[in-house]
Amino acid sequence: MNALQVELGERSYPIYIDSNIYNDLSYFQKHIRGNKVLVVCDSNTAQHYLQATLAMLSDYQCQSITLSAGESQKTLDTVSQIYDALMQYKFDRNCTLIALGGGVVGDICGFAAATFQRGVTFIQVPTTLLAQVDSSVGGKTGVNHPLGKNMIGAFHQPACVIADMSTLRSLPPRELKAGLAEVIKYGLIDDAEFYHWLNDNLQDLLALDTDKLAYTVTRCCGNKARIVAADERESGQRALLNLGHTFGHAIETAMGYGNWLHGEAIAAGMCMAARFSANSGFLAEEIVDSVVNTFKSVGLPTEPPADMTSEQFMDLMYRDKKVRDNVLTLVLMNDVGGAFLSSTFDTELLRTTLFQTLNK
Amino acid sequence: MNALQVELGERSYPIYIDSNIYNDLSYFQKHIRGNKVLVVCDSNTAQHYLQATLAMLSDYQCQSITLSAGESQKTLDTVSQIYDALMQYKFDRNCTLIALGGGVVGDICGFAAATFQRGVTFIQVPTTLLAQVDSSVGGKTGVNHPLGKNMIGAFHQPACVIADMSTLRSLPPRELKAGLAEVIKYGLIDDAEFYHWLNDNLQDLLALDTDKLAYTVTRCCGNKARIVAADERESGQRALLNLGHTFGHAIETAMGYGNWLHGEAIAAGMCMAARFSANSGFLAEEIVDSVVNTFKSVGLPTEPPADMTSEQFMDLMYRDKKVRDNVLTLVLMNDVGGAFLSSTFDTELLRTTLFQTLNK
Repeated sequence: MNALQVELGERSYPIYIDSNIYNDLSYFQKHIRGNKVLVVCDSNTAQHYLQATLAMLSDYQCQSITLSAGESQKTLDTVSQIYDALMQYKFDRNCTLIALGGGVVGDICGFAAATFQRGVTFIQVPTTLLAQVDSSVGGKTGVNHPLGKNMIGAFHQPACVIADMSTLRSLPPRELKAGLAEVIKYGLIDDAEFYHWLNDNLQDLLALDTDKLAYTVTRCCGNKARIVAADERESGQRALLNLGHTFGHAIETAMGYGNWLHGEAIAAGMCMAARFSANSGFLAEEIVDSVVNTFKSVGLPTEPPADMTSEQFMDLMYRDKKVRDNVLTLVLMNDVGGAFLSSTFDTELLRTTLFQTLNK
Repeated sequence: MNALQVELGERSYPIYIDSNIYNDLSYFQKHIRGNKVLVVCDSNTAQHYLQATLAMLSDYQCQSITLSAGESQKTLDTVSQIYDALMQYKFDRNCTLIALGGGVVGDICGFAAATFQRGVTFIQVPTTLLAQVDSSVGGKTGVNHPLGKNMIGAFHQPACVIADMSTLRSLPPRELKAGLAEVIKYGLIDDAEFYHWLNDNLQDLLALDTDKLAYTVTRCCGNKARIVAADERESGQRALLNLGHTFGHAIETAMGYGNWLHGEAIAAGMCMAARFSANSGFLAEEIVDSVVNTFKSVGLPTEPPADMTSEQFMDLMYRDKKVRDNVLTLVLMNDVGGAFLSSTFDTELLRTTLFQTLNK
C-alpha cells in the first residue's frame, strides 16, 4: 500500500493508494467524525459500490444519496439535494460525508461539506482515474455556474483520500482516457521523466495494469501534494496545475457541461497551450508535435470543437478564475516539464492563433 | 470616531463606528480590492442609501443588486441572484462586494463573497442596530434551510465593518427594538456593568441618542471582537454569543422566517433560557424577573408564540447547530453577566419547563 501525506499543518491528511480498499473500514475508521455518515454517490457508483460501502459502515447511523451522473449535474440545485437529505436525517455538525465517485461527485459533496453548518468532515473515495490523480486531492470544491465552470465553491480539505485501483475496472474506456489527460498534464508541468515513462507505458495503463496504475496515481498525487502544500490557496505556483484548463473550461462551457468530458477538453486545451507557446516563441515545434502525438495515442482530442469561434474562446477565457482586472494569466510551456505562468503574453497573437486553429 | 480591531492574525480587520461615514470613501478605499465593486442592498436600504453609495464609488466599475427585503429572502436562491449578477458583469476574483443593509443582507452577501470563485473580498456596512452590534462582526455568513436557520454557510471575515449611527434614523421602531435584544444579550453574557447602564438608558437609545448609540455599538462590538478573536470557529466560548438563540431559532423556524424578527425571537428565547436556568437551580427567581422586565421595557416579547407546542420546541431545538451526536449544548445563566455552556442539563426538566410555559 502506498500512503502519501498532504502537508497542510492542522489540515494535513493522507492519501491511501491500493487495491480492494474502498470497503475496508480500517482505512475510514480513524477519519470518520461522529456517528452519522452520509454516503454521496451517483447512479454509476451506486450500482457498483454502494451496497458494500453501506455494509462496511453498518456500525454507524449511515444514510446515502444517489445523484444523477454527469457534469451537467454539478449545480447548486444538486448541492441543495444533499442539504435536504442532511436536514431530513437530522445530521449535526459532528458528522461525516463520504464522496464515492468521480470528480463531479467529489466536487459537489465537498462543497456541501464545506457549507453545511459552516463546515463538516468529508472523505474522498475517488472511483475514476481523473478524480484519483487530481480532483480528490487539494481541497478545491464547488459547482458550475451556467456562465462559467467551477465559479461557485470553497477550499475545504478532506479528512483523507482513499484511492482504490480496483474501482478503475468498472470505468468506461472513455472515462479512463479522460483521466489520462490529467496524468499526462503532470509530466508536462514539471516531471519530464514521468512524461517519457508515460509515453512508453500508456497502452499498459489503458489495459488496466494495476501496478502501473498504482505507480501512476502515486506519482501524480505526490506531485500534486507537493504543489498544494506549497500554495494551498493558489496565490502562485498552484496555478500551474491549470495547464490547458483555461482553454479546456471554455470548451466545456461552450459545448454544454458533460458533452465533452473534462479530460477531453483539457487534452485539446493542452495542445492549444503548446501551440500558442510555440507561436509565442517559447516552445520548439517538435515538442508541440510530441505533445499532440501523446494525446492522440491515448485517443484523446487534440483540437477544439470545430463549431466554436475564436471570439467565443476569447470571451469565455476572459471570464476564467485566473483573470484579474481583465488580465488573464495563462499556463504556457517552454519544454516538456517546463510549464510557467504568463500574464504578459501577446493578446493579439492569442486571438490570431485561435483564429488560425478554428478558421473563424 | 471609534475604531476597534478584530484580532484574527492575517484576517484581522477594523470596525469603524461614527456618524455620516457610510458614504465617505476614505473609510472604504484602503479595503476595496480590485476595480470592480458590487453593492448588495435590499429594497429598504436601496431607497435610503444606494444613490449616495454609488456616487461615492464612481471611480470604480461599480454595479449594484437590490434584493427583496426580509428574512424570508435569506435563501440559496437569493445567493444565486448575486452569482448571476457577478457572472453577468464579468467580475473576477479581484473584486469587492459591499453589504449595505441589515443582518439578512450581510449574511447573504457574505456567503456569496465566501463562495464566488472560492472567496472574494467583502465589506460590511450594517444599517440596522442588530447588524451593527452583532451579525456584521465575526465572519459568520450563510442562509436558511426550510428546516433550520443558518444551516448553510461559511466562515468568511469581512475586510472592514463601517457602522454609521446616522443610518439608524431610517430604521422602523420595531427593528430598533429588535436590535436592542442583541445589545441586552451582551450585558447578560458577561458584562453586568453594561446591563445596568442599559437599564438606565434604554429609553434614550429608543429615542436615538446618537452618542449613547455609538457608545452601545462600541461596547457590544468590543465584547464580540474579544470573544471572536479567542475562538473564531466556535469550538468553545464563542457559543456563549448564542444565549437565547436555540430557543429563538426554533421560534423563527416554526413561525416562518421573517414573521418574528430575529431580535424578537431571541428576546423571548433569553427569557426562556433564564426561566430554565432558574428551574434548574442555577439562577435566582428575581433575576429572571429583572431580565423579563428589561425586555418588556423595550417592548420586546418575553414569551414564546402561544401556538407553538413543547414538542415542536424540542424537535426544532435538537436540529440546532449546537447539537453533537444528539446532545444539545444550551447557553444558561447563573447571574446577570454569568452565562455558561451546559450540555449536562436535565432534558426532562427542559421538556417540563417548555410544557409549563406553553401549556401544551
